[in-house]
Amino acid sequence: MSQVSVQLPDGSVQQHPGSATPMDVAKGISEGLARAVVAAQIDGHIVDAFRPLEDLKPAADPTAAETADDSLSLQLLTSRDAAALAVLRHSAAHVMARAVMRLFKGVSLAFGPTTDGGFYYDFDLPEKISEDDFPKIEAEMKKIIKAKEPFERFSLQRDKALQLCEEMGQDLKVEHIQTGLGDQDAVSFYRQGEFVDLCRGPHIPHAGMIKAIKLLSVAGAYWKGDAKGRQLQRLYGTAFFDKKELKAHLELLEEARRRDHRVLGKKHGLFAFNPEVGPGLCLWLPRGARVRTLLEDFLRGELLQRGYDPVYSPHIGRVEMYETSGHFPYYRDSQFSPLFGAEAGGLLDAWSQRLEAGTLDRDGEDKLMAAAEVLGVTLPDYKPSASPEDRRGVLHRWQTENERYLVKPMNCPHHCQIFKAQPRSYRQLPLRLFEFGTVYRHEQTGELNGMLRVRGLTQDDAHIFCTADQVEHEFRATIELTKFVLESVGLSDYRVQLSLRDPDSDKYVGSEANWDRAEGALRGVLEESGLSFNEQPGEAAFYGPKADFMVRDCIGRSWQLGTVQLDYNLPERFKLEYAGADNVGHRPVMIHRAPFGSLERFVGMLIEHFAAAFPLWLAPEQIRVLPLSEKTTDYAVAVTKQLSDAGLRATTDLRNSKVQAKIRDAQLELVPYMAVVGPKESESNQLALRDRIDGDLGSMPVAEAVAKLTKEVADRTVRTVVKNALMETESSGEEMFAG
Amino acid sequence: MSQVSVQLPDGSVQQHPGSATPMDVAKGISEGLARAVVAAQIDGHIVDAFRPLEDLKPAADPTAAETADDSLSLQLLTSRDAAALAVLRHSAAHVMARAVMRLFKGVSLAFGPTTDGGFYYDFDLPEKISEDDFPKIEAEMKKIIKAKEPFERFSLQRDKALQLCEEMGQDLKVEHIQTGLGDQDAVSFYRQGEFVDLCRGPHIPHAGMIKAIKLLSVAGAYWKGDAKGRQLQRLYGTAFFDKKELKAHLELLEEARRRDHRVLGKKHGLFAFNPEVGPGLCLWLPRGARVRTLLEDFLRGELLQRGYDPVYSPHIGRVEMYETSGHFPYYRDSQFSPLFGAEAGGLLDAWSQRLEAGTLDRDGEDKLMAAAEVLGVTLPDYKPSASPEDRRGVLHRWQTENERYLVKPMNCPHHCQIFKAQPRSYRQLPLRLFEFGTVYRHEQTGELNGMLRVRGLTQDDAHIFCTADQVEHEFRATIELTKFVLESVGLSDYRVQLSLRDPDSDKYVGSEANWDRAEGALRGVLEESGLSFNEQPGEAAFYGPKADFMVRDCIGRSWQLGTVQLDYNLPERFKLEYAGADNVGHRPVMIHRAPFGSLERFVGMLIEHFAAAFPLWLAPEQIRVLPLSEKTTDYAVAVTKQLSDAGLRATTDLRNSKVQAKIRDAQLELVPYMAVVGPKESESNQLALRDRIDGDLGSMPVAEAVAKLTKEVADRTVRTVVKNALMETESSGEEMFAG
Repeated sequence: MSQVSVQLPDGSVQQHPGSATPMDVAKGISEGLARAVVAAQIDGHIVDAFRPLEDLKPAADPTAAETADDSLSLQLLTSRDAAALAVLRHSAAHVMARAVMRLFKGVSLAFGPTTDGGFYYDFDLPEKISEDDFPKIEAEMKKIIKAKEPFERFSLQRDKALQLCEEMGQDLKVEHIQTGLGDQDAVSFYRQGEFVDLCRGPHIPHAGMIKAIKLLSVAGAYWKGDAKGRQLQRLYGTAFFDKKELKAHLELLEEARRRDHRVLGKKHGLFAFNPEVGPGLCLWLPRGARVRTLLEDFLRGELLQRGYDPVYSPHIGRVEMYETSGHFPYYRDSQFSPLFGAEAGGLLDAWSQRLEAGTLDRDGEDKLMAAAEVLGVTLPDYKPSASPEDRRGVLHRWQTENERYLVKPMNCPHHCQIFKAQPRSYRQLPLRLFEFGTVYRHEQTGELNGMLRVRGLTQDDAHIFCTADQVEHEFRATIELTKFVLESVGLSDYRVQLSLRDPDSDKYVGSEANWDRAEGALRGVLEESGLSFNEQPGEAAFYGPKADFMVRDCIGRSWQLGTVQLDYNLPERFKLEYAGADNVGHRPVMIHRAPFGSLERFVGMLIEHFAAAFPLWLAPEQIRVLPLSEKTTDYAVAVTKQLSDAGLRATTDLRNSKVQAKIRDAQLELVPYMAVVGPKESESNQLALRDRIDGDLGSMPVAEAVAKLTKEVADRTVRTVVKNALMETESSGEEMFAG
Repeated sequence: MSQVSVQLPDGSVQQHPGSATPMDVAKGISEGLARAVVAAQIDGHIVDAFRPLEDLKPAADPTAAETADDSLSLQLLTSRDAAALAVLRHSAAHVMARAVMRLFKGVSLAFGPTTDGGFYYDFDLPEKISEDDFPKIEAEMKKIIKAKEPFERFSLQRDKALQLCEEMGQDLKVEHIQTGLGDQDAVSFYRQGEFVDLCRGPHIPHAGMIKAIKLLSVAGAYWKGDAKGRQLQRLYGTAFFDKKELKAHLELLEEARRRDHRVLGKKHGLFAFNPEVGPGLCLWLPRGARVRTLLEDFLRGELLQRGYDPVYSPHIGRVEMYETSGHFPYYRDSQFSPLFGAEAGGLLDAWSQRLEAGTLDRDGEDKLMAAAEVLGVTLPDYKPSASPEDRRGVLHRWQTENERYLVKPMNCPHHCQIFKAQPRSYRQLPLRLFEFGTVYRHEQTGELNGMLRVRGLTQDDAHIFCTADQVEHEFRATIELTKFVLESVGLSDYRVQLSLRDPDSDKYVGSEANWDRAEGALRGVLEESGLSFNEQPGEAAFYGPKADFMVRDCIGRSWQLGTVQLDYNLPERFKLEYAGADNVGHRPVMIHRAPFGSLERFVGMLIEHFAAAFPLWLAPEQIRVLPLSEKTTDYAVAVTKQLSDAGLRATTDLRNSKVQAKIRDAQLELVPYMAVVGPKESESNQLALRDRIDGDLGSMPVAEAVAKLTKEVADRTVRTVVKNALMETESSGEEMFAG
């Protein structure tokens, strides 16, 4: 058995027998380290700590000369490494499944992956699991954990694996081996005590490492996410290396629950959904619409100053345009169906899809043909004996001749048409077209989530058409814009993910030279910007590299917001051209970018970040004037007018109630400032200013209050988020998690 | 024969025998008047001057007691009356048809109505008429006119009329008598010499009254507008009482041609259409989008100040919502087809429509059912023996269970849902929800006309929900807003058409008391406003009275722009309620209103009105800085920045060309101001300001120019439209028609 050369993070290289495991490497360093090792990372992949090193060597490239640097790059992971937590949680999912199988009969296992905050496992079992069952499942899990049994990996050839799963009565696993594994030969399993599960791993060395667990919820799910498939029960839980971390996490969940934008959106009249309008189709109520308008105006002003041009494009477009762009039929599963200009359009569309899927037999075909005739469509060129491609061709010709539109899933094809609408010269480049463009995507009902995942979303979309030379400058400007936008709403904790191409793949469009140059430019700009960023080779789309802003909110959750995407594909597909200085036609590069991402998601995120208490410049209502009694009503109205005339969003509370009640309501309704006016203020043209966060600020001339608030708006000041978040809206007085 | 009592406009009442004609009445006044009489208006209807008065008496109401005031109200129309011109033009259409029949063989006559600016006649004939034929047709028409033959009316029973048309070989007229006349018994014809035409009239006494004619164009048309029907040739012409009027009209047409927004829109990069996007779907190019954004910002600012709340709603909605509102299937001919969530959706929709139209036989039904099965839909409750209603019910239930959306043809259903999204109290009313809402309507391709008639239009839409008590105040505020908006773009010549209900009809929803009160309030507000307005009884929609602003542009054409519409129907259909002071639920009244109408139409109209030379506040580019030579490039850039920082839309022409050429280009591109900067200006921080209309304004400090332009923007000054219109863009130097 050959020796394996291992390089550690400190750069030292060790030689080990091929049968040695990362755990052995750890032991060689110290017993303490060995006890702490959770898993290992080898050449970028997370693996079991007890896998033999020789298993983990990449298959030797027979064409490559043997070189000295074929050593494995090994990092031992302990509970301090972020990646170790996912391994722990996946093992906890196995422990949970084991506990469920001990407590319930007839359990079919589906899959049990990790999530951002924990894990779940999907089961099919006759009995319905409820939250009432959680204590006993948790108790059983603790029993398993206490036994500290190891996780053991073994691998079987496919037929043996099938046999094992059949013997265990795991019919879903049987189905998965039969239909879900492609041409994979061997399959891995993990055993922990009596529990054996088909699983890719990796796992922790033994269950005793799980120091804290908690079941969170149970919900319905479908086998492989297919709504027509088997209905399963999905049990969610979380696990940690440390009880304190679990406690903090549960507090975070509780805090997130209190910040839930769906709840706050309803409470504060920001937005609504309605089944009569349609799931995932957002109605922006007046207060939410104000916030959106303020954000749009703010960004539009910035864009105009930064050399962008506004455009508007329709929300529908001919299907043929999306065939040109490649968005149809490729993405049709996530699109709303086309609109058909002709009665038989829908029938021919279904017909064509079935031909493509190969699910139409001759009898069915005859029936569809007969129905088409009833609807007035005869297709003399359609021969059932012809190839499916030829038959689809006939249907496609008919469809193209008749009207067929798509509700737009993207704005880019429209913007390409705007580029093409006029002759373009290099002098006009970069041409930066922006639009708040609402697009529609048919997300699965189960995936909809308030404003965070919708079916209609308004992108703060722009497409920059430029030369290859200009990519670097435009990328820099876009990064600066995105930083500026995020910081204007007080989001200053973010990093950038730079998705690059896989150098070993040839799936990419655009010349290698352009990719090299673009990726280099992107990397260079990010380095020079001082932003924290990480590169993700192989994560780029086939049409260009991209950069995503990952933003952390005030309770520590990460959100993917702004994005910048290079595109070598659409300019090619739409045959975009500009006349160069050489008077010859050239293909521009296209950059898609959206600092907010979408208004829906961005505002949804802001609602949670601010717990709906928006900073002054975004607050739908900025100041409320509260007369002490009816005697100062006129003065209150006059003050409100003065404030409004100064451009502040001011209202008056003219109800016949005590000022304390008015203050309480304004606080609960998250109005940033209150102006209390009584006889004293009335006589001196003053107001008693009250800050929702800091309370009474004392009496001052109206003009002084105007100046103070106007400055806060102009500076786009964002005051302590945690402090101003929920303290006034919740009466429970619970301690908050400061993230 | 009984006497007829006739009341003249001066109030005098005359008695005439029933056989007397309006012409006889005229002769009784003066021979001169008789020579001038073109037609008559009796009780509001325009009639032939040579019809016996007894024919023109309304059928006696047998239930009504005979009263003294059953006299006819008669007005004799001469060439001075606007209504007379349409009569003349319709007679000219007959003369044109007569000339065509003399010159061409096998002419089938369709219809020959008048239009805003003239008339047309549709013919079916083997030979293709071209503009080359116009001189000979015009010559033949002049010959006919010179003969001064009278127009003679006669009436036939339907069978006799059919026989006559068959004898004349007029197959289209035969078809019309057979299928287009409902249960009408008698049919009128007009004879002029050898020419006899089925026609409702009225006509002028004799052809000699036509003093000026001109054929304008020839185009294709369809019999009764049906694209599947017979193809006809439509010959357009115009006619006048006076040659000078014809000349003025032709100049107007020429001026309108030069102002054609489709031509100017392309020339100045304002908007584009593209068959790949779809007919009637406007792409707003940067310069046009700037104008739209400025208009939207302006109006939004006004609305926020006037107590409106912004909202945003999606561009699609479930079909069921439009069934609730009544917009589906009632208006489906003018809507884009639904989007179907299920594969068989389109088939079931077509199926359902055919059941409704009664065009589905048993065999066809079986075939559709078989096709539905192929697509996975079985309908066990569907019994071919059941009534069509029951069968449609089964299909409808399936459709409702599956997803079905409509691209929104209106914003109102969405706004009703926003009203319903929160509990509403009388304290919140009036609630004024506004949105720049883009709606989609499937206009016939042949009816599309640039931005003036599109398939996707953005309404500056708002819906005011208020109490019946508040209607008057809201209507007044809306009228004031509309006036303000129109005058802000220099449109000050307008009148209001007030559409009221037909007091004899019972088709209206909403209580009679509410209608009385609302109509009274509308009339009162218009009277008090001092606006010129006219009432149109019977023109109101079934759901409420409305007011339309008819605006005259700088060349005298009339445009229907802003509209205010009361609605008693949708609040009922959507069961909208607010809690009254009595704590009981009440139904609000809804007011739809849109001062622009739609952004597309409004901007299209403005392009024609201003010949694309927008006033400063709307100009996409306000000032262009022109360095005299490269030596002042830096200074030019600095001046541009100073102007931009002051909020002006300023650019720099840095091309290496003579300043004269730069001035010419800026003039041609309709930039309102130019700033020429040379060494002299550079030394003194000045600029030489040049006005596109008035030319050189001399040198001045940059700050002075900023102040001047900023004031012009703030005042929304609209300078002489005719003067600034085309003078710089056309080099022909033709005299312009000043309208």
